[in-house]
Amino acid sequence: MTAIEYGDDILIVDAGVMFPENDMLGIDLIIPDYHYLMEGDRLSKVRAILITHGHEDHIGALPHLVDDIVAPIYGTPLTLGLIENKLRESKHLHEVELISFRAGEVLQIGPFKVEPFHVAHSIPDCVGFGITTPAGLIVHTGDYKFDHTPIDGWPPDFAKLAEFSQRGVLALLADSTNADRPGWTESEMDLLKGFEDVFRHAPGRIIVATFASLISRVQIAAASAIKFNRKMAIAGRSMRDAVKIARKLGYLELPDDLLVDLGVAVKMPANEVIIMVTGSQGEPSAVLGRLARGQHNQLSIQEGDTVIFSAHPIPGNEELIYRTINQLYRRGATVLYDRIAKIHVSGHASREEMKLLINLIRPLFLIPIHGELRHLKLHAEMGKALGIPDERIAVVENGTPIDLTPYSMTVRDRLPGGYVFVDGAGVGDIGWAEVRDRDRLAQAGYFFAVVHATGRGEMIGKPQMSTRGLINEKEQDDLLKGAEETIVRVVREAAAAGRELTAGQVEAALNRYIYDETRKRPVIEVVVV
Amino acid sequence: MTAIEYGDDILIVDAGVMFPENDMLGIDLIIPDYHYLMEGDRLSKVRAILITHGHEDHIGALPHLVDDIVAPIYGTPLTLGLIENKLRESKHLHEVELISFRAGEVLQIGPFKVEPFHVAHSIPDCVGFGITTPAGLIVHTGDYKFDHTPIDGWPPDFAKLAEFSQRGVLALLADSTNADRPGWTESEMDLLKGFEDVFRHAPGRIIVATFASLISRVQIAAASAIKFNRKMAIAGRSMRDAVKIARKLGYLELPDDLLVDLGVAVKMPANEVIIMVTGSQGEPSAVLGRLARGQHNQLSIQEGDTVIFSAHPIPGNEELIYRTINQLYRRGATVLYDRIAKIHVSGHASREEMKLLINLIRPLFLIPIHGELRHLKLHAEMGKALGIPDERIAVVENGTPIDLTPYSMTVRDRLPGGYVFVDGAGVGDIGWAEVRDRDRLAQAGYFFAVVHATGRGEMIGKPQMSTRGLINEKEQDDLLKGAEETIVRVVREAAAAGRELTAGQVEAALNRYIYDETRKRPVIEVVVV
Repeated sequence: MTAIEYGDDILIVDAGVMFPENDMLGIDLIIPDYHYLMEGDRLSKVRAILITHGHEDHIGALPHLVDDIVAPIYGTPLTLGLIENKLRESKHLHEVELISFRAGEVLQIGPFKVEPFHVAHSIPDCVGFGITTPAGLIVHTGDYKFDHTPIDGWPPDFAKLAEFSQRGVLALLADSTNADRPGWTESEMDLLKGFEDVFRHAPGRIIVATFASLISRVQIAAASAIKFNRKMAIAGRSMRDAVKIARKLGYLELPDDLLVDLGVAVKMPANEVIIMVTGSQGEPSAVLGRLARGQHNQLSIQEGDTVIFSAHPIPGNEELIYRTINQLYRRGATVLYDRIAKIHVSGHASREEMKLLINLIRPLFLIPIHGELRHLKLHAEMGKALGIPDERIAVVENGTPIDLTPYSMTVRDRLPGGYVFVDGAGVGDIGWAEVRDRDRLAQAGYFFAVVHATGRGEMIGKPQMSTRGLINEKEQDDLLKGAEETIVRVVREAAAAGRELTAGQVEAALNRYIYDETRKRPVIEVVVV
Repeated sequence: MTAIEYGDDILIVDAGVMFPENDMLGIDLIIPDYHYLMEGDRLSKVRAILITHGHEDHIGALPHLVDDIVAPIYGTPLTLGLIENKLRESKHLHEVELISFRAGEVLQIGPFKVEPFHVAHSIPDCVGFGITTPAGLIVHTGDYKFDHTPIDGWPPDFAKLAEFSQRGVLALLADSTNADRPGWTESEMDLLKGFEDVFRHAPGRIIVATFASLISRVQIAAASAIKFNRKMAIAGRSMRDAVKIARKLGYLELPDDLLVDLGVAVKMPANEVIIMVTGSQGEPSAVLGRLARGQHNQLSIQEGDTVIFSAHPIPGNEELIYRTINQLYRRGATVLYDRIAKIHVSGHASREEMKLLINLIRPLFLIPIHGELRHLKLHAEMGKALGIPDERIAVVENGTPIDLTPYSMTVRDRLPGGYVFVDGAGVGDIGWAEVRDRDRLAQAGYFFAVVHATGRGEMIGKPQMSTRGLINEKEQDDLLKGAEETIVRVVREAAAAGRELTAGQVEAALNRYIYDETRKRPVIEVVVV
């Protein structure tokens, strides 16, 4: 999410989600921290939310954002179709104005002239934005690759980029995702051959896992299915929704007689079927994850099935993906993944394309966006190698304001704040402190004791103790016995010294005892009644 | 860990550790489940523990194993040096007999003729074993690659493999790690050029992160250091130990005047220093992890430092590694990792080497080992493509007995059991049930309440409540208030109905209330006093 501010007007570009890292325990999603926009009278200055394309990391935060920020959302027809679906699901649709545009149009929004230009990526109808501000022209690429033969036949708008360049570009904000990937990203069209190879040799059903919104991949799978006389079923609500929207709007051409219901597909001869599924990142609750564990209600893996993972692992997901692959093998499937077959290409520009972009645009200032810090740094190094001096490149992390004038760029201090965690029904009610607590509980569980004592420090009955995640039931008797002795000793010492018994004293003693016995440090809580 | 059993005699080959996956919460290590060897009189049958080489995944379980199994450990001098160090640290050394051999020797152990043969890998003095049993010859490769130009000048013993083949091999147990990696693994010697490129251009200090036991990599870094007139310091006890042992035994040639203490190195001109460090897998407590967070007591990252990650990510570690790289960049270092520089080669054979091995040995039976199920399956497919029929290939997971006769192979049912978790001081006192509890706590924390009531069901004072990891302190007041009302209601209802108040009733009501409010399901425990 980027905000472009001039005087009394603000444009927002994209509002995506980030997926939590493995040690952000229990967190469902992360949305951008937009406190900056909530301060002062800034909320009233937001004129538009411009969206580059319909992937989750660009639209996923909209249902939360529209609770706080009232402004029309601008997108191409497919992008708006996907947004509409998302807002309807979260019951926010009625509140929001959606404004459609097509690449090549010009929108005047407040003092900004916005020129969406077509780029190629892994979903159709993607754009970047040329945004003419009173200070100069800013080019924001969105996600892009220089694919000359995209599956929808619509290559990126090089002419528009050249025209921007001629006009003079103040700042280029460009996608850095593949800054550590040498060469040039393969065309989507190159996948046709890889898919056809699989279809030619697969003895039984073909199951293709990919992202729900990777519409281009569905088109490729469909082309192969038609060529090899297979019918296609789609499993997984999110993918069915995306396909339905893309077909309705004309971005996905699937003949009616190609598609069959999943219930029909499972009864057809195995070598006449292809099934598109969600779960390419190993998500346990997606269709493929359920298939891998034998827990899908309509479909089960059988000997002879060929499963295609048509996606790269997002860093952090490797372990879940490989576990899913192993489970699928265990059930008799043959599994093809990117290391052993040509069944996926990236949707993002590689290093040579990133260099071409910089040389095509020749911006005064380069601001790498969309990537981890390592990608931004590598992107900046490329810019430097192409002749942009260090002081005209801004490598900044989320939350850093940059002041641009027609001739200068100033990077200001990063704003306080950071990730906003979405967890269950709560947005922002969980922070790092709670995640650290969860981590401690995850490491060694807890130990809980209730001590019932008289005013004179004499215990009434035995302490009630309970533990989870610390030690297994079979072997906990000794530990509980020792813990009870520890509690009795502390109570007795307090009484002998005439001190009031506190929970803290008992907790400290239990902490020492349990660590000595187990070398573990569970969360310990004692209540003295 | 593999056991080879004939009549009254058992040989063990290797006893390594596995590292826990990200969702095996709080687990330190996983060791093999060797209950099979503890049953009946099998313990008395174990004649030897044969070790192929000194990496953790082959020797790491020995300190636990020697508690249960009394048998001499056989290894090459370097391997035994590393084992000796490990057993000394865990105070087990005195109990264990260590027997040294060299590749090419013949050992007669019970009815088994054991012929260790040299293989190339990423640590010197590695072997596989030819084991002639009364039923036939078994070849166990250990970890290997067909490196013709290893850095220690000692290529694998092709002649011995050819000789085994001539004698006729009953079963080949071969390394499957890289079964999804096409082609031929690059030679260690190829890295010299990559390292020299880095040394030629690095403006300041060079910091090389790799595995502590990757002795060959230390040799390559040393060669570059000497060529470019830099002194070498080693940070991290495990790496210092490994280097010391390898030097003492003659497996690592470092001139005395190359090495300097870390305290000296940090005071030298930056471009005259290279520092070897542990932490290439992003481990937060290793040297590089501490450097990345600015928490090392002697060393800190400075502008101009070049950090080399000379290791592949082990699947599951990517996220921690990339986080470490980002942190190093944030502190001003330039970071080189395998995607952007030629600074690591694998220690394992790739597909073409695996095919060569199979064709060189031409075993009657092929048993892929050492890899996830997907690797074993791909290895089996290669065997099949080379003409070994399906029924002569056994793809089995850990714990599966295989009966071999001179002319048959029978795969028996997998034995019950599985992973043995090491957690703190405990071995096996944590199982899947406790890990599931930890996972639940990690997802949403806990909610505790103590309800003090009279025999007639009247509450004495307010309930005492406590929560961790569920909601942040600022926003918990409403939740606690509602929880208290819920408790009061349950207590009143029980009293009105003349029912005894139970913790279970209160827990069920709180569970519903908290889920309705937060959509989270913490662990809830109620004690009624």
